[in-house]
Amino acid sequence: MQGALGSGADPTSIVAHLADRTAKVQNHYPGALAVDDFLARVEVALAAYGFRGDNSLALTNVCRDESTGILKAKIDEIFGQAFNINGLGGVVTCGVTGIGAGISHAPIDPSGRERYVFFAFPHAAVDEKGEPASIYRPGRAEKSNACGALLFAVNAVKEGGIEEDSAGEHDPKEPEGSILISRIKEQMRMEKADPKTIDVVEMTKVSYSLLRNCALCCTSSRVPL
Amino acid sequence: MQGALGSGADPTSIVAHLADRTAKVQNHYPGALAVDDFLARVEVALAAYGFRGDNSLALTNVCRDESTGILKAKIDEIFGQAFNINGLGGVVTCGVTGIGAGISHAPIDPSGRERYVFFAFPHAAVDEKGEPASIYRPGRAEKSNACGALLFAVNAVKEGGIEEDSAGEHDPKEPEGSILISRIKEQMRMEKADPKTIDVVEMTKVSYSLLRNCALCCTSSRVPL
Repeated sequence: MQGALGSGADPTSIVAHLADRTAKVQNHYPGALAVDDFLARVEVALAAYGFRGDNSLALTNVCRDESTGILKAKIDEIFGQAFNINGLGGVVTCGVTGIGAGISHAPIDPSGRERYVFFAFPHAAVDEKGEPASIYRPGRAEKSNACGALLFAVNAVKEGGIEEDSAGEHDPKEPEGSILISRIKEQMRMEKADPKTIDVVEMTKVSYSLLRNCALCCTSSRVPL
Repeated sequence: MQGALGSGADPTSIVAHLADRTAKVQNHYPGALAVDDFLARVEVALAAYGFRGDNSLALTNVCRDESTGILKAKIDEIFGQAFNINGLGGVVTCGVTGIGAGISHAPIDPSGRERYVFFAFPHAAVDEKGEPASIYRPGRAEKSNACGALLFAVNAVKEGGIEEDSAGEHDPKEPEGSILISRIKEQMRMEKADPKTIDVVEMTKVSYSLLRNCALCCTSSRVPL
């Protein structure tokens, strides 16, 4: 969350501003946490199970948008350079070979155990007026979108519905975009979501469920590399 | 390049070691530069054309392997958080939507100009004995490979040849792997490369040509997002 407060601002105003921004984010995404808060909880919780920066490897799956780099950099600070499974809208396209590579790179402890931490997230903006998907990027006066790929998916299902696509086919000019939408449709069929009424906030939640399923599917189909 | 020298080593030995390691890398990849040397040259060369960290956006395309994170972090230090177009073996699968998003996020200068810097690389290991594709990862005694996806491609073309695949088809469990190999085959046909004799060093050079072509193709097909 970025605010408009200068460095000389009254600390009380900063706290009030951040509380207001948090409320506007949680209005759309209940339970959302600020990134430092979230990662501190993750680090402490995983430390209880023996996961540390020097004995674990993270696999990070976030959208390609550079605005997700802030989160990725903070994960790298805790667990070292992560294996990167980024895709548009968080779609996992690296397959069993990609996941298989990622889960064969961690340090091996004396008992033979390897430790991996999967981070998989869609991303979403909420601007200071509370509008979802609205983001202002440095040096650009016009409003931009996040996640653009999920807005693309909203339009695709509103126009084209959620009928099943042929497995193993993609648009050669849009490999990831078409695979993302095909999987979004599958998830929406499972959830019985209505393509006519879906908005970007609901699509973000569909994407969240989808990429958890994708990651589970890939890891359960692991092949040695 | 990582060496086995401790922090108390004689500086003369360190220089000799680095010169030896550089020679072993250049034996397979003539003209290869160390990352700091390369990026200093890039930064100076682009500064002459007005590209700076505060007015440009980088798009980085490297393999998903966490060992490429060192390079990516150094690019981020110069140009800020980059738009990430990573794929296995450097394959570009984010399509016109992905590239279109990346090239609509940079700061706009008063004349309306936007500045983008594309970094696209395959990755390759050379160990201290000079063996290509050999890499030792922290906390793992067994040798590992880099780039694993390009070794996968070497095996695929040795076994299956380089006949044309059907456009727009992929293995649902290996979206990126199968798209990578399909494009590798196309590049090898263009270069009249022999799939029976290709090794990982030659495959790395094929990949380098391929991903330059992919990036050019995506940017020339830009669609607004």
